[in-house]
Amino acid sequence: MVRNGFNLGLYVVTDERLSLGRPTAEVVAAAIRGGADAVQLRAKDDLSVREQAALGRALRALTRAAGVLFLVNDRADLAAALDADGVHVGQDDLPADLARHIVGPDRLVGVSAATVEEALAAREAGADYLGVGPIYGTLTKPDAGEAVGPERITAIKARVPLPVVGIGGIGRDTIAAVMAAGADGAAVVSAIVGAADVEAAARDLKARMLAAR
Amino acid sequence: MVRNGFNLGLYVVTDERLSLGRPTAEVVAAAIRGGADAVQLRAKDDLSVREQAALGRALRALTRAAGVLFLVNDRADLAAALDADGVHVGQDDLPADLARHIVGPDRLVGVSAATVEEALAAREAGADYLGVGPIYGTLTKPDAGEAVGPERITAIKARVPLPVVGIGGIGRDTIAAVMAAGADGAAVVSAIVGAADVEAAARDLKARMLAAR
Repeated sequence: MVRNGFNLGLYVVTDERLSLGRPTAEVVAAAIRGGADAVQLRAKDDLSVREQAALGRALRALTRAAGVLFLVNDRADLAAALDADGVHVGQDDLPADLARHIVGPDRLVGVSAATVEEALAAREAGADYLGVGPIYGTLTKPDAGEAVGPERITAIKARVPLPVVGIGGIGRDTIAAVMAAGADGAAVVSAIVGAADVEAAARDLKARMLAAR
Repeated sequence: MVRNGFNLGLYVVTDERLSLGRPTAEVVAAAIRGGADAVQLRAKDDLSVREQAALGRALRALTRAAGVLFLVNDRADLAAALDADGVHVGQDDLPADLARHIVGPDRLVGVSAATVEEALAAREAGADYLGVGPIYGTLTKPDAGEAVGPERITAIKARVPLPVVGIGGIGRDTIAAVMAAGADGAAVVSAIVGAADVEAAARDLKARMLAAR
């Protein structure tokens, strides 16, 4: 089962608004060709749940064919119904223990944490991994709060025995610092889905990530 | 199990914005004292999912103590995690078959339907009951579409063998017409949660509903 060993690696988060009008399924397919290890469907404010379900079916097929992890943001019901590999919840979303109740013992529950305290609480609530950030300033998620810097990853890894992906403003110039701080992976939004050449951007970021690991 | 026989009757839908600043749990408690048969938590745009979960726990306790049905709007995950009696989904929400997948065979899946076609599709997808409307013009849900009138209930009941609650603009002057059109219950929002005296409003509506049945 996926919880016994998983590699978050280059973790692509979808964003309808940043994809330059290209269909998200096409963007994700290109990111996978470029080496993405995990894909998170995030479309909370942009698509109805009905539309998320349709898109999710397409992403589940793509990721399954490629052996890439597939996670759904916020909606544990959608994650379970689509047979995703997991759900990712933020601090205002479904509490991790309730999310676990829905997705069961075999799927991942990822939790956003900005502080050591939130990380410890997430671990207590049964999180399988943490999304730590925003590492850098980001325009993708205006409500994401103050940038915490890559050193926050180091601080959390020292206290919480869970895999961590950094998130927030990570791109080609910063991914090495995120990995050097101890991250197990890097979540990227605009630097991939907003790139003119998505596949090339993913390939470049993946190479930089692997070199810095 | 609840699906073997349930009475939607006077079906109260919560609304944070219409409750005149009173806590929703207090409003619901008063509506239950006034005779509400079912309560639906609907707070999609007003509360984070984390807040909905906290409020849902309170409403589950209140409704369970009173023997009143408890449903959650849109979020099948929350419905299952709170051990609600069911989930209610709109045409843009989780498809009914996916909702069923999450809530299981023992909980209700209610589906909003404005037309005979939507009602037939909902039945096909496994709906246990229909919310038909908006029966009258409503300010509660600006995106709810054109008023369909109580005669739409009659048309749907003639073709679809499912319990129906009317919804949309139903109050003391119209609840009798909704029941006379063949509804099995009436969903009420502002005429209850926005009433100066919630308990008295619910009691009055319940009496009018029972007299018209």
